[in-house]
Amino acid sequence: MPRLITAFSNPLVKRVRSLREKRYRREEGLFLAEGLRILTEAREAGRLPEYLFFAAESARHPLVLALVEAVEAAGGEAIETSRDILHKLSGKDNPQAVIGVYREFATALDALDRGDASIWIVAQSLRDPGNLGTILRTGDAVGAGGLLLVDECVDPFSVEAVRASMGALFTQKIALARWEEFLPWLRGGPGQLVGLSLDTDIDYQTPRYEAPTFLLVGNEAQGLPKAYADACDLLVKMPMCGKADSLNAAVATAVMAYEVLNQRRR
Amino acid sequence: MPRLITAFSNPLVKRVRSLREKRYRREEGLFLAEGLRILTEAREAGRLPEYLFFAAESARHPLVLALVEAVEAAGGEAIETSRDILHKLSGKDNPQAVIGVYREFATALDALDRGDASIWIVAQSLRDPGNLGTILRTGDAVGAGGLLLVDECVDPFSVEAVRASMGALFTQKIALARWEEFLPWLRGGPGQLVGLSLDTDIDYQTPRYEAPTFLLVGNEAQGLPKAYADACDLLVKMPMCGKADSLNAAVATAVMAYEVLNQRRR
Repeated sequence: MPRLITAFSNPLVKRVRSLREKRYRREEGLFLAEGLRILTEAREAGRLPEYLFFAAESARHPLVLALVEAVEAAGGEAIETSRDILHKLSGKDNPQAVIGVYREFATALDALDRGDASIWIVAQSLRDPGNLGTILRTGDAVGAGGLLLVDECVDPFSVEAVRASMGALFTQKIALARWEEFLPWLRGGPGQLVGLSLDTDIDYQTPRYEAPTFLLVGNEAQGLPKAYADACDLLVKMPMCGKADSLNAAVATAVMAYEVLNQRRR
Repeated sequence: MPRLITAFSNPLVKRVRSLREKRYRREEGLFLAEGLRILTEAREAGRLPEYLFFAAESARHPLVLALVEAVEAAGGEAIETSRDILHKLSGKDNPQAVIGVYREFATALDALDRGDASIWIVAQSLRDPGNLGTILRTGDAVGAGGLLLVDECVDPFSVEAVRASMGALFTQKIALARWEEFLPWLRGGPGQLVGLSLDTDIDYQTPRYEAPTFLLVGNEAQGLPKAYADACDLLVKMPMCGKADSLNAAVATAVMAYEVLNQRRR
């Protein structure tokens, strides 16, 4: 039976709202996701929120009912509330009808089965949460196994990253590692490490990529450190016909990931 | 000779700061761009700011000197100022060393020469400034002629769009039009209108695209209205191998634009 919360001063409302800040996410090990579509995708991927907030006026929507039932069956708490409180929780003028509070998760490198997919995406020191979420979304689209975040990346559980992932956060595996951990793990099994770089003459359409392909994309401003580029099996670049010398990191990753996918489906 | 401004209360500082809001941009017809790289690219593309703010400590940088000289020669004003004021103008914790205030520009449809490029990007009701800027950046990379913004799109002169474009705002032509204006203009000359759609079975790698190709991408949430899709010569989609049914709008545009470019360079 859902609890009803209508007071802004409710301690749970304050606590959940604080999860928009990284330090509270780290303290609690919890994060926020919003929207019926994303929460339903999470449910289908086997991820349920510990707390589910939903607007009273959407309480009869079949997907909301399915979420409430699943959350309560799993021992979580469903909370009926007002649009105003959803607005306060999400920080958006036009809040979604549902907000979920999820336990953070990540997969240890050693628990990843690289044979699960023929494409994996590896991002190094990625700074922009929108890029991170967009790369997850692209990973889902190309059938990637997951996203490996190397070195100090932006938090994949930030509200902006979760939003930009459009649910792919819940369907893609996520691993966090230092480069010194990642490289030995990678070399402990099959896999071609392909770095996106501006310092190469190899066009991205020239090589035949081997499965599993690990696509390595560097920091938005700096690109890959030289030592990391040197450790790649292959460095490739996209043609650049204009004045600029680089693409947005999420765009470059997507153009490259579709090339790998296109080779596989020929 | 650059003017020196050190007071936060200076009326020009207040006026320039207000340009971060759309209504003041519309009132003044001016917008902001930040960063030595972007301002230099603008200068090389023949666009100079009416006001150029630069940090005292970067006054001797050769690219800053070149900007100051060009701005003053063109009758604009160069203003030496403090990091604190640059921070106030840009709203960023770590402001760029230079900020330019530019006159807004756009090209009328009838003034576009479609023969200038074999790819043009057309976005309809685009909402996200980051997507808009990223699409401009991709357009520059693939050698597109410009971006045609159809119906009510986010402001291409917003700080976020300018930032995401990484200077491509100054090198790509930009036109604003209603669909009712765009379609007759398009049909008044050569050009294939290719819409990105989820409601088609045609894989984006199957057709041979004709030059000039006009790539039409719809609103992030709604996609293309049916009447707009019906008006296309061709609707195509990317393979989607995961749980999600769509890509980020800027990513989809880029994957598609590189396919067109790749066909041309074969």
